[in-house]
Amino acid sequence: MRSFFKVKRAEDIFESLGDIKPLGTEIVPIVDALSRALARDIISGEDIPGFERSTVDGYALSAKDTFGASEGLPTPFNIVGEVRMSEIPNFDLKRGECVFISTGGMLPKGADAVVMIEYCQMVGDRVVEISRPVSTLENVILSDDDVKRGQIVLQKGTLLRPQDLGVLAALGVGQVDVFTKPRAAIISTGEEIVAIDQRRKPGQIRDINSYTLGGLCIKSGVEPLYLGITGDRFDDLKLLIEKGMSQADVVLLSGGSSVGTRDFTLDAFSSFEGVEIVAHGVSISPGKPTVIAKKDNQTLWGLPGHPASAMIIFDVFIRWLFGRLCGRSSPAGYTNHAVEAELDRNIESASGREDYIRVKLTHAEGRWLATPILGKSGLISTMVKADGIIRIDMNTEGLYGGEKVKVRLF
Amino acid sequence: MRSFFKVKRAEDIFESLGDIKPLGTEIVPIVDALSRALARDIISGEDIPGFERSTVDGYALSAKDTFGASEGLPTPFNIVGEVRMSEIPNFDLKRGECVFISTGGMLPKGADAVVMIEYCQMVGDRVVEISRPVSTLENVILSDDDVKRGQIVLQKGTLLRPQDLGVLAALGVGQVDVFTKPRAAIISTGEEIVAIDQRRKPGQIRDINSYTLGGLCIKSGVEPLYLGITGDRFDDLKLLIEKGMSQADVVLLSGGSSVGTRDFTLDAFSSFEGVEIVAHGVSISPGKPTVIAKKDNQTLWGLPGHPASAMIIFDVFIRWLFGRLCGRSSPAGYTNHAVEAELDRNIESASGREDYIRVKLTHAEGRWLATPILGKSGLISTMVKADGIIRIDMNTEGLYGGEKVKVRLF
Repeated sequence: MRSFFKVKRAEDIFESLGDIKPLGTEIVPIVDALSRALARDIISGEDIPGFERSTVDGYALSAKDTFGASEGLPTPFNIVGEVRMSEIPNFDLKRGECVFISTGGMLPKGADAVVMIEYCQMVGDRVVEISRPVSTLENVILSDDDVKRGQIVLQKGTLLRPQDLGVLAALGVGQVDVFTKPRAAIISTGEEIVAIDQRRKPGQIRDINSYTLGGLCIKSGVEPLYLGITGDRFDDLKLLIEKGMSQADVVLLSGGSSVGTRDFTLDAFSSFEGVEIVAHGVSISPGKPTVIAKKDNQTLWGLPGHPASAMIIFDVFIRWLFGRLCGRSSPAGYTNHAVEAELDRNIESASGREDYIRVKLTHAEGRWLATPILGKSGLISTMVKADGIIRIDMNTEGLYGGEKVKVRLF
Repeated sequence: MRSFFKVKRAEDIFESLGDIKPLGTEIVPIVDALSRALARDIISGEDIPGFERSTVDGYALSAKDTFGASEGLPTPFNIVGEVRMSEIPNFDLKRGECVFISTGGMLPKGADAVVMIEYCQMVGDRVVEISRPVSTLENVILSDDDVKRGQIVLQKGTLLRPQDLGVLAALGVGQVDVFTKPRAAIISTGEEIVAIDQRRKPGQIRDINSYTLGGLCIKSGVEPLYLGITGDRFDDLKLLIEKGMSQADVVLLSGGSSVGTRDFTLDAFSSFEGVEIVAHGVSISPGKPTVIAKKDNQTLWGLPGHPASAMIIFDVFIRWLFGRLCGRSSPAGYTNHAVEAELDRNIESASGREDYIRVKLTHAEGRWLATPILGKSGLISTMVKADGIIRIDMNTEGLYGGEKVKVRLF
């Protein structure tokens, strides 16, 4: 058996994978573009709204004509008509004239403000009295207030949110160029692993990791390909990895955490031409027995068999990798859903590795309390109980109860 | 024209909609069950892992036999064999005997602990020296450590996360009973609104709300049905609403914010038998001109035409409504993705209504700063610039720069 010969720190792994590039691009209708990353800048071809619009119901007029109007001494205006929605108004207002306009209507020539209906009093059929002066452009959206022609509206790499789809619609951009969705092949290994629809005998356990990893992929906007389970035959494993490499951008293999299984995975990865081993062990707990390999832009991951360990390696590295492959521009910190909480007891940690601790959150007296969930990383139930994880730095020997911690939610 | 005659506060609206019930249930494979809400409790039919497992590579033995072992005086054990993965080991260890076991292997009779390989030294072919004592159950997962038979593993209403799929897999539950995904019919109204693939004339604007609302639905796990645009003909509007009511659980209509349009929506909703008007105006800004109606478990929403206003009404009410329809149990506060930030300037607010302020987040000196984005709610670009919103309570007249605020991200 071989010991870990290439245990790497997280930062070195990020560096080794630093040349991973986004995949290709494709054009999709905007109704299908939510949470996809833009493959190019969107530059506006026009002003939006493109005309001067009223933001209220009221009377359009020239602001200077309202000077001095008050409740005591309202200013009368002659109503010369009404702006019809969706039409270009055919008026040219003269001094003392106004037209009725609805919210969203186009201002006629000669008008530069709108008086809200609340400050208008009809006196007869064709005259309205204004009891309050308005300033120029009051209650008006200018032609290019929303978007200016030639402006970069959305930048390449933006992960499209509902409002981003809205601005694309405003510009008449019905189809958009986005980065291709990555695909991840998922393989479970281990002689003791059985499919969930099979009869389980004592000594066997059901395949858990295909489902946790598949779920994590979907949540990250990545399509999972479930390739199934393979036992301890080298050729079977190789065949499945090969299938994964031919169909997917990332191969996520998870296996028993025994030294034999790890070596087996390492040998299988190494047997492909052009595959380079990036790490054989990572200085993270849980998750140390991880094998990472790379061939051009494809990566192969030999994740620990323990579900909690595999999930933490996913959270630390693979979520980040998917962001790169998706072409997403560096996300701001706040997009990693996290809450600040107070640790409710001391936690010890070994120096020289990053420790990830599962915690349960409870709310008390206006603040969040984080309670560490102890339990072996072979248990899936600890992940079910957990609301998130906290990270203990490599150079820290632990955290004290009462300390503020950042809980990454999952 | 009618003024708002039934302006309601948010809390009264929640109360009026308090009897909305989850939709039906359906059975889906667990690979399709991510982010769906469980329709019944999941009770374990078996112990997991179901047998005593080793969590390390090493030698299985009786802990008491290692008493007194040390580096200076290691204790020798006779190796009587090896546990084969996935098989029931056919040993019954006697005093001073051990077997090799890999991570995940089943403990043989007579063994109650595993010594890690690191503390074992081979002396000859069949003898290993142990240099450290182990305690009973050290490096062992008990038969019911992960899940106990009869235990409620996941509760009805749980929104399934990747690790929840994992525990279902561990139990051999390949299909699961979840609440039906709601459907929302989306209609845009307004004589000035044109479809995004049509030529836009001056005075017209493109349909934005179908896309922002559709995106919000998808993000909330709800299927949007895009019913298109209708102008100012009452019968056309009625026909579209009827179509929405026959196909969807919720009808989201958004229209110009003029009084005329609001009355039009109100009349259209009221014209259906059994429809009750819940609110005509809400004391929220932006978003006041909202009409809410209800027929049994169906709700009809006349949202403001301004994209930002419609999005805020969605965020406050419709996201909550979808949670009810999806059968999701009351989500904990932390699931509303939010960050705490410091306001970077004073904001005034009118007393007597809830104000929602769009903010941009920047990170400086270890904390988040929230900068209000000023701009009319008719602009979609302000929502694109915003990272989230903050809420100013009805009884507050504003917030001071430097105050801590909770920013709801979108």
